[in-house]
Amino acid sequence: MYSIGIDLGGTNIAAGITDSDGHIVYKASVPTGASRPREEIIDDIAALCRTLCRDAKVPFDSIRQVGIAVPGGVDAAAGEILFTPNIPFSGINIRDILSKKLDGKPVLLANDANAAALAEARAGAAKGAKNAVMITLGTGIGGGIVIDGKIYTGSNGLAAELGHFVIEKGGVPCGCGRRGCFEVYGSATALIRMTKEELDRCFMSGEATLMAESRKLNARVAFDAYRAGDAAAKRVIDKYIGYLASGIASLINIFQPEVFIIGGGVSNEKQFLLDLLRPLVDAEDFARDAAKRTRLVIATCGNDAGIIGAAMNE
Amino acid sequence: MYSIGIDLGGTNIAAGITDSDGHIVYKASVPTGASRPREEIIDDIAALCRTLCRDAKVPFDSIRQVGIAVPGGVDAAAGEILFTPNIPFSGINIRDILSKKLDGKPVLLANDANAAALAEARAGAAKGAKNAVMITLGTGIGGGIVIDGKIYTGSNGLAAELGHFVIEKGGVPCGCGRRGCFEVYGSATALIRMTKEELDRCFMSGEATLMAESRKLNARVAFDAYRAGDAAAKRVIDKYIGYLASGIASLINIFQPEVFIIGGGVSNEKQFLLDLLRPLVDAEDFARDAAKRTRLVIATCGNDAGIIGAAMNE
Repeated sequence: MYSIGIDLGGTNIAAGITDSDGHIVYKASVPTGASRPREEIIDDIAALCRTLCRDAKVPFDSIRQVGIAVPGGVDAAAGEILFTPNIPFSGINIRDILSKKLDGKPVLLANDANAAALAEARAGAAKGAKNAVMITLGTGIGGGIVIDGKIYTGSNGLAAELGHFVIEKGGVPCGCGRRGCFEVYGSATALIRMTKEELDRCFMSGEATLMAESRKLNARVAFDAYRAGDAAAKRVIDKYIGYLASGIASLINIFQPEVFIIGGGVSNEKQFLLDLLRPLVDAEDFARDAAKRTRLVIATCGNDAGIIGAAMNE
Repeated sequence: MYSIGIDLGGTNIAAGITDSDGHIVYKASVPTGASRPREEIIDDIAALCRTLCRDAKVPFDSIRQVGIAVPGGVDAAAGEILFTPNIPFSGINIRDILSKKLDGKPVLLANDANAAALAEARAGAAKGAKNAVMITLGTGIGGGIVIDGKIYTGSNGLAAELGHFVIEKGGVPCGCGRRGCFEVYGSATALIRMTKEELDRCFMSGEATLMAESRKLNARVAFDAYRAGDAAAKRVIDKYIGYLASGIASLINIFQPEVFIIGGGVSNEKQFLLDLLRPLVDAEDFARDAAKRTRLVIATCGNDAGIIGAAMNE
C-alpha cells in the first residue's frame, strides 16, 4: 500500500506518494495561492492527490491514507486546524472536508515540525528509533517529539514547542510573549543577530574582521568566517554554540531519546556543527556515564520531511 | 487481582498491596538497614511481600506483580538498577533476583519520582489522565512523565530529569555539573537559600523582618511570613515563584500534558501555591488561548505515591 503526504506551505503545496517504508515514489507541487478562499485551496489539494496517482500510475484505491503537514497548530484527534499564521485555514476541520473529496479516504493532520520529526524517525537520520526528538533551526525553532514511533502531540495538539522553554530568565524578548526562550538564542535568526551585534562592536572599535566583508548577513557568514580563522566569528560561534548546546542538553535530560535530530538551515553546517556541539552536550548530559546514550545527528530528509512525515503519520 | 508496590528508601522499605484501582488495601514497612549487604536487604523485601499477604489475608497467588520504586536510575527494560546514591544496589538486576525469590512473579522497576507521577495519573490528582507531568519539589526536583498511561523512561531509563534543564544560563551551580538548572531555583533547597540570602541582606541593612524570628529555616518560613504580611518574605516568595512558574511554563510548552502535578515538600502550600503560580504560568503557556489547557494541580498521593506507582507500573 501507498500513502500520500501533503506539505501545506505558505507558498507551495508539495505532495508525494510514499511506499510503506516512507520512500517517495513520486512527487509534485502546485502554488498555494494563500490569498484565495480556502475552499479553492482545498479543491487544489484534492485535485493534486488525484493527479499524483494518475501521473505516478498508482491506482487511487491503493492509497491507504492522506496525511497533511500543517504550518501551525492542529488538533489531530479532532481533525481540526487550530491556527495557521500564513494560510487561511484556522479553525476548520480539514480532515472531514478533504476526506469527503477523496472518496472517504482517511485524512490525518500533523504540525509540520512534528511531521518532520516523524519522517526522520521512520525514514531519515533516526530511522528505526522508537523515541526521537528533533529541533529545526530556522527563522524560529520548530520541535517534534516521536514516542513509541508516533508523534507526541500532548493533550491539545500543541505540544513540542521546543523553541519556547526559557534558557535565560528575563533574557531577549521572544515572539511568544516570554523572555529568554531557546528560540531567541538557538535559531538561525538568533545566530544572525549575534553576528550583527559582534560586527557592530567591531565597527565601533575599529577592529576589521573577515565577516565585515560579507554583504548580506545570513546564518552561514559566521560559520564561514570562523573556518577561515576570523577571531570575531569565533566569538559569535562560541556564544551561539554555547546556547544551542545548553538547550539540546536540557532536552536530552528531559527525554533521553534514542536519537536527537538537528534540522533546518543551521543544520547545513552538518559535521562541523556536530563537532562543535558534541563536547558541550556530552559534558551536560545527565546520562553522560550511561551505557546507552542519545545519538546527536543531522536531519537527512531535507525538504521532503513534511511529505514523508505526513504520509507516515498514524 | 492485586499488586504489591515497594517503595525502597534509604531509611525504610515501605510496601503495600493495592487493588486494580491503585487503592492500598494493606501496607507495612521495615527499616532498610542500608549499610547491610544487599542480599540481606533483598531477602527482607521478599519476606515483606509474603508477610504483607499473610497479614492482609490476600493469597500470594492473587498478586499479579511486584513493582519497586527505586531512589536512583533504573533500566526498567533490562530489570537493572543503574545507580542508587544512598543504598548499595547500583548495577544489579534486582528484577531477576527478586522474581526468583517470589516464585517467578513479575517484578517491575521504576525510578521513585517516575512512580510518583504514575501514582498521581492512576489514582491521585491526575486520575484518568493519559498524559501527565509531575515535579517533586524537595531537596532537589524530581520528575516523572506519563504518556499514554505509562511511565516514559526514554531510551536508557534516565529520562524525566525535570530538575536538570537550564533556566538561567551560567547561573547557580547544580550538583549535576551544570549551572542554572531548574532544580537550583525551584526546589525547596532553593527556596531556603533565597530566604537565607534575603535575611542576610536584612541583617546587613539593619532591616528587621518577621522571618528573622524563625529559629530554623525551612521551606515554610518565607510562605508563613508572606502570609503574615512580611515585606522581605514577599520579595523571597515573588522571586521563587517567578522561577518556579517559568520552569513549569517551559515544561507545559514542551508537553502540553492534560495535567501538571506539583508534589514534594513545597506542595504542602497547596492552594496558596497554586494561586501564586497560575497567573504567571497562564501568561507564559504557549497554548494559553487554546480550548484545552493543562490543569495545574497539587499531588494527593503523598507518601504512598511510591507504593502506588510501583504497584501500577506496567
